[in-house]
Amino acid sequence: MNESINQVQTKYLNLNKTIVLESSKTLSNIKIAYETYGKLNENGDNAILICHALTGDAHAAGYHSKDDKKPGWWDTMIGPNKAFDTNKFFVICSNVLGGCKGTTGPASINPDTNKPYGHDFPVITIEDMVKVQKELIDYLNVKKLTVAGGSMGGMQAIEWTIKHPEYVKSAIIIAAAARVSAQGIAFNAVGRNAILQDPNFNNGNYYEGNHPEKGLAIARMVGHITYLSEQAMHNKFGRDFKQDKPNFDFGVDFEVESYLDYQGRIFVDRFDANSYLYITKALDYYDPIEKYGGLENAFNKTNAKFLIMTFDSDWLFSTESAKEIVNALIKKEKKVSFIELSSPCGHDAFLIEWEKQARIIKSFLKEE
Amino acid sequence: MNESINQVQTKYLNLNKTIVLESSKTLSNIKIAYETYGKLNENGDNAILICHALTGDAHAAGYHSKDDKKPGWWDTMIGPNKAFDTNKFFVICSNVLGGCKGTTGPASINPDTNKPYGHDFPVITIEDMVKVQKELIDYLNVKKLTVAGGSMGGMQAIEWTIKHPEYVKSAIIIAAAARVSAQGIAFNAVGRNAILQDPNFNNGNYYEGNHPEKGLAIARMVGHITYLSEQAMHNKFGRDFKQDKPNFDFGVDFEVESYLDYQGRIFVDRFDANSYLYITKALDYYDPIEKYGGLENAFNKTNAKFLIMTFDSDWLFSTESAKEIVNALIKKEKKVSFIELSSPCGHDAFLIEWEKQARIIKSFLKEE
Repeated sequence: MNESINQVQTKYLNLNKTIVLESSKTLSNIKIAYETYGKLNENGDNAILICHALTGDAHAAGYHSKDDKKPGWWDTMIGPNKAFDTNKFFVICSNVLGGCKGTTGPASINPDTNKPYGHDFPVITIEDMVKVQKELIDYLNVKKLTVAGGSMGGMQAIEWTIKHPEYVKSAIIIAAAARVSAQGIAFNAVGRNAILQDPNFNNGNYYEGNHPEKGLAIARMVGHITYLSEQAMHNKFGRDFKQDKPNFDFGVDFEVESYLDYQGRIFVDRFDANSYLYITKALDYYDPIEKYGGLENAFNKTNAKFLIMTFDSDWLFSTESAKEIVNALIKKEKKVSFIELSSPCGHDAFLIEWEKQARIIKSFLKEE
Repeated sequence: MNESINQVQTKYLNLNKTIVLESSKTLSNIKIAYETYGKLNENGDNAILICHALTGDAHAAGYHSKDDKKPGWWDTMIGPNKAFDTNKFFVICSNVLGGCKGTTGPASINPDTNKPYGHDFPVITIEDMVKVQKELIDYLNVKKLTVAGGSMGGMQAIEWTIKHPEYVKSAIIIAAAARVSAQGIAFNAVGRNAILQDPNFNNGNYYEGNHPEKGLAIARMVGHITYLSEQAMHNKFGRDFKQDKPNFDFGVDFEVESYLDYQGRIFVDRFDANSYLYITKALDYYDPIEKYGGLENAFNKTNAKFLIMTFDSDWLFSTESAKEIVNALIKKEKKVSFIELSSPCGHDAFLIEWEKQARIIKSFLKEE
């Protein structure tokens, strides 16, 4: 049995420079929340940067205190002898720019006003997230690294290989694509609309009053539909009623409604509605295919070795969409391993089916 | 070129009886809005009842006035020499119980209070809709009929064959299933939540004030995602921006957002939020498989000839789910024709791809 890392803590780096964003706007006084596990070697080349998905954070592994009920979000994969083996590697995870888990985002204090940014926070992109991560990597004296992530984390990994080819030894891209589909944008747009229309939203300046929790909960419900496959929903809930029979009212009636209702309710306690707006927008905008006139061009300079993993029931980031990355890499004669794993869990599989992934990642990292 | 029916009008039937609903509650003073096209023959056996989908109405064909820009919602299919040939058949379409297009629904006046029902309106089911349609059919002296419908209309057609086997000669079920999947319930639940959480909702008693239009628009946006296939969204909008480049704000940015925004906005002018709640609930509840212990049992008494049509890109009511009906009918040695049509249009195909359907339906009805 592999053990978990004990007693980790989130650290903070304050950047003493101004970052120019993709939108041409600037951000100063950026704080980055991050955690590290394992030790960096002398050459600074045994690092693995873990990039988190839409609602993740820097706390990827271990426990913050003995009282913690749950370890970090990818604890199954990060630790001694695990897929990302902390006996060998220096594993880093940081909260993304625009997030609400310690790194500067719309809920942070705007130094110009001494109030939370709200919608004075500039719209950020995946490129901007990576730009900020690069500052952290330099600060930590990392010279070479592996980048790994699922879903939006996979997009950040792609961006690393494009923007910093001299740094990236290998990239592990799980349940991700080079860009979101029109349908993916549509789902994100519905979620954003639910937040924007919430009467508590107040143009994003709600931090002193009630938060737009109802809108955020609806956004999360929509999200969860896309994270599960139809089959997974059928297997988990079917058409079962919560109380064995129809209530003939508009309360929570079916098990699947109860699940979504619960997911919506618990989410608002741990996430900021503005961060949801900013990060989904970053997701929607990311499009290296358009930006570079094809993925082949985007990958021109990379010498990284790629591992692309998908799940057959993932309809948010389908195998078909991930194959765009694979095919571009093959065309450019880059090193790429591709595997589609079978799972009924849909997009969520990247967090659930860790054993299959762990075996593959371990072997992929051993080859280096 | 087939012509449209000219100058039709919606008629109204007031039922002078009390209807006992599936919930055991009762409704009195029910008004039914309906239209008819063509003439009933002496035997009363050339009737076709058209059942509409979630947001449809009784106005299925022709024009109400010369100034009308659009004919009824299925005018492509109903008229002289069309699929439902009004030279041969007596075609009927009525607005469903719970609707907001003339038939009694939550916006109707409650005779007990002289105010709109709001949520004093009882929760209704597909079975209740058919019960009310049966009253209309009897009033019109119809003795034998064909029932036809797409989506929720197909569910009503199924219910007719189960409940009134002595009346139904044939059933045409398009882009429908015997029941909604867990994922389908989930999408409807999100839409209902958006309405229920709208600050104007006021427990459903909003008729004297502002209507919960924002919630209803969000519900409609979710609906439209399910009506189009991923491919159809890709073909129609791709990742195009409305103004050629990103706005770096949270307004309408991508073409697909603009489409959903527009669909949401125009919908609130023509539909009542309470009807949306009641009708989606009826959709979710319908489950003859559970009710009769299998579809084979449900279809025990029917002698109707069935035509089941699906569209390969429809993921709301997939071919797989429709095959449950087909397989049950085959097991019971009933007459059934099944065809999966190829279309990129998703669920919407049943309203768009009318030419393919028309040829098949014409030939199916000729065989009688």
